Amino acid sequence: MLKRVDSDWLRDINRRRVLREVRKVRAVARVDIAEATGLSPATVTVVANELIERGLLEEAPAEAEGDRRRGRPRVLLRLAPGALRVAGVKLAEHRISVTIVDFSGETVGESETAVRTRSQPLDALVGLIEDNVRAAAKQARIRPRDLAGIGIALPGYVDAMTGTAWWSPVLAEPEVNLTRLLEGRFPCPVFADNDANIATLAELWFGLGQGVRNFTVVTVEHGVGMGMVLDGRIRRGARGLGAELGHMKVALDGAPCRCGQRGCLEAYVADYALLRRASPILPDIDLADPARRREGLAALTTLAHQGSAEANAIFREAAAMLGLGMANLVNIVDPGMIILSGTRFRNELLFSDIMAKTLKENSIPFGPPGPEIRTHVWGDLLWTRGAAALALEGLFDDTLFGLQSVRGEVQLTGA
Amino acid sequence: MLKRVDSDWLRDINRRRVLREVRKVRAVARVDIAEATGLSPATVTVVANELIERGLLEEAPAEAEGDRRRGRPRVLLRLAPGALRVAGVKLAEHRISVTIVDFSGETVGESETAVRTRSQPLDALVGLIEDNVRAAAKQARIRPRDLAGIGIALPGYVDAMTGTAWWSPVLAEPEVNLTRLLEGRFPCPVFADNDANIATLAELWFGLGQGVRNFTVVTVEHGVGMGMVLDGRIRRGARGLGAELGHMKVALDGAPCRCGQRGCLEAYVADYALLRRASPILPDIDLADPARRREGLAALTTLAHQGSAEANAIFREAAAMLGLGMANLVNIVDPGMIILSGTRFRNELLFSDIMAKTLKENSIPFGPPGPEIRTHVWGDLLWTRGAAALALEGLFDDTLFGLQSVRGEVQLTGA
Repeated sequence: MLKRVDSDWLRDINRRRVLREVRKVRAVARVDIAEATGLSPATVTVVANELIERGLLEEAPAEAEGDRRRGRPRVLLRLAPGALRVAGVKLAEHRISVTIVDFSGETVGESETAVRTRSQPLDALVGLIEDNVRAAAKQARIRPRDLAGIGIALPGYVDAMTGTAWWSPVLAEPEVNLTRLLEGRFPCPVFADNDANIATLAELWFGLGQGVRNFTVVTVEHGVGMGMVLDGRIRRGARGLGAELGHMKVALDGAPCRCGQRGCLEAYVADYALLRRASPILPDIDLADPARRREGLAALTTLAHQGSAEANAIFREAAAMLGLGMANLVNIVDPGMIILSGTRFRNELLFSDIMAKTLKENSIPFGPPGPEIRTHVWGDLLWTRGAAALALEGLFDDTLFGLQSVRGEVQLTGA
Repeated sequence: MLKRVDSDWLRDINRRRVLREVRKVRAVARVDIAEATGLSPATVTVVANELIERGLLEEAPAEAEGDRRRGRPRVLLRLAPGALRVAGVKLAEHRISVTIVDFSGETVGESETAVRTRSQPLDALVGLIEDNVRAAAKQARIRPRDLAGIGIALPGYVDAMTGTAWWSPVLAEPEVNLTRLLEGRFPCPVFADNDANIATLAELWFGLGQGVRNFTVVTVEHGVGMGMVLDGRIRRGARGLGAELGHMKVALDGAPCRCGQRGCLEAYVADYALLRRASPILPDIDLADPARRREGLAALTTLAHQGSAEANAIFREAAAMLGLGMANLVNIVDPGMIILSGTRFRNELLFSDIMAKTLKENSIPFGPPGPEIRTHVWGDLLWTRGAAALALEGLFDDTLFGLQSVRGEVQLTGA
């Protein structure tokens, strides 16, 4: 009994270890998998052959000449691109975007619709998401029912464990479960998570976080978000809402935030906060309109570059507050790397020496050096790639090997 | 090969799952272990019998009459108290304390020496620790070489992975590796960690955190500390230093902290900070002397109770800053429970309605209710019990079953 029951479970674990290693390195020899995972070469061979049979891995000849000179040609293993395809959906205030990626992470289909998401009745919004997934599948030359999973990225407070969006600026109603609504329209599992965790998964699966055990991702768009990987896995906390760096308080009874509280980092750093402070020099900007906010921020940046003392003071204060918030990240979570992700990091006025100096002056001064700070400008690809990573993560963890039963008991941390 | 290599590893995992379940519930029937772990009853029987043979578990009759009426008498499993003993060492500014606990967590020996730890040369300090461990072992009627492990709790910046104390107020020198020094004097493994993580382990192994997947512990003594359990395990971050709530910044360019930075939570909440603000009404207190600080704080508390507006304002500001710091904990880590641990929580002026109100007004307002806040006054037992938990955790993770090879690859999250 002992042997039979638990050997299945063990084989599942070993399959996942091998798959994760291949995913991490992209193309890798069996012997190197054994070395990296600590599994015996014999175990790796057995498991790898089974994964090839199931169509998840494929063999590829080593490209480098050098390998052949050292002995017989090495055969590398890589993810079989056609093994499965997932759809990543991004809901923004003014757009729905869908990208379909294959198992190796390549984009094979895309679709998008410009729409004021929040103005749509829920049923119409779900219909638009469905239409875009179908259009992207058509471009990818697959049937919608061939999708292995769908991931949805949206801003706001989202419980990734249940898929419930408690509040989101792209939804007209509170407490919406998009995953359940979409699972009525596609036969595959659907997952949802907030923007910042999506960005974190994008880094973990496809970006700078591959193989890094402790890192956090900070995103600055309309708001400020973060996600954290500790000991190799994304951590979302007790309520599954993820970390809310944007609503970390950097001052007691400080500036009012759009969330209704005071002193939030967002109330000093987000675009609406910068423009609110800029109203004496840039009046008449409609803060509710994303396009006008973008124009306003461009104008404020131009003023700063032209030497406006007021404009430069606004950016300096925001940069210092951002440095303070990031220092608190270091003081609480102690990441090995902070990845600044998103498009706003192109703004060198905000992500400036002042931010770096404030960060250094306010974080733990003892022990080994603090985290490496890296900037990663993905463009729009970030969100749909990340949403696809969410679907892959959901599949890896639960569905791909039918592992529901071990959830919460054993986990792989090699990520 | 597959079978042989990985079955050992699997059996280790199963042993740990069974042991952890018994530890969590204290006395538990085999059938309930099977239910809780998801292992088959047959597997539990095999593993439990092996653990009994190895002397780690023992059988105990069920106490309740009720059980017998429902059928045959149930036999419960519990940790065998004599299976192993570990020593917990606490280094404070003015004292060295040692407690020896058995496998079931009962105290079996104690010893302490009053001494200004920081004034001791390192060699003399290590000698004093050794003497106290030997004295406590004598009281426990065991030989020092029968100790399975030693854990050391000390304040400051300590890397638990290597045992290096980068800086500690109880050590005369920076960058001291006490674990290595003590491993030269005892044949067992030695572990070290900072106070706040030690308090967290005490809660996880013996206290309110048993079986809770996400919680943080906040300690307020001379300084402010915290430790966090996420997804069932203590998380120490990339540098192994743990979280530094006391040095979270609650104000940009705020009050000076003894760490040399500004705006730290400690600079508003720690005893020296309260007394510094109280200098107009309580002059001439030597902040460097722990005994004088205790007297000063008692005097300030009395003044507040007698209606002094200045004294009450000092406690109100500190309570609000503490609430702000804890709100940021909720915003970043989202624990399901916050445990206020240590002796200072007896002070109802600091842990007041103002703290609770500020916490609520500054933490994420959406989704399910925020963390339960609980107070746990351990007294001095906390630190040595926690240090013993550190040794037990170290033994469970690495030494007890020789599991070094899987470190970082597979972990049990059932805690």
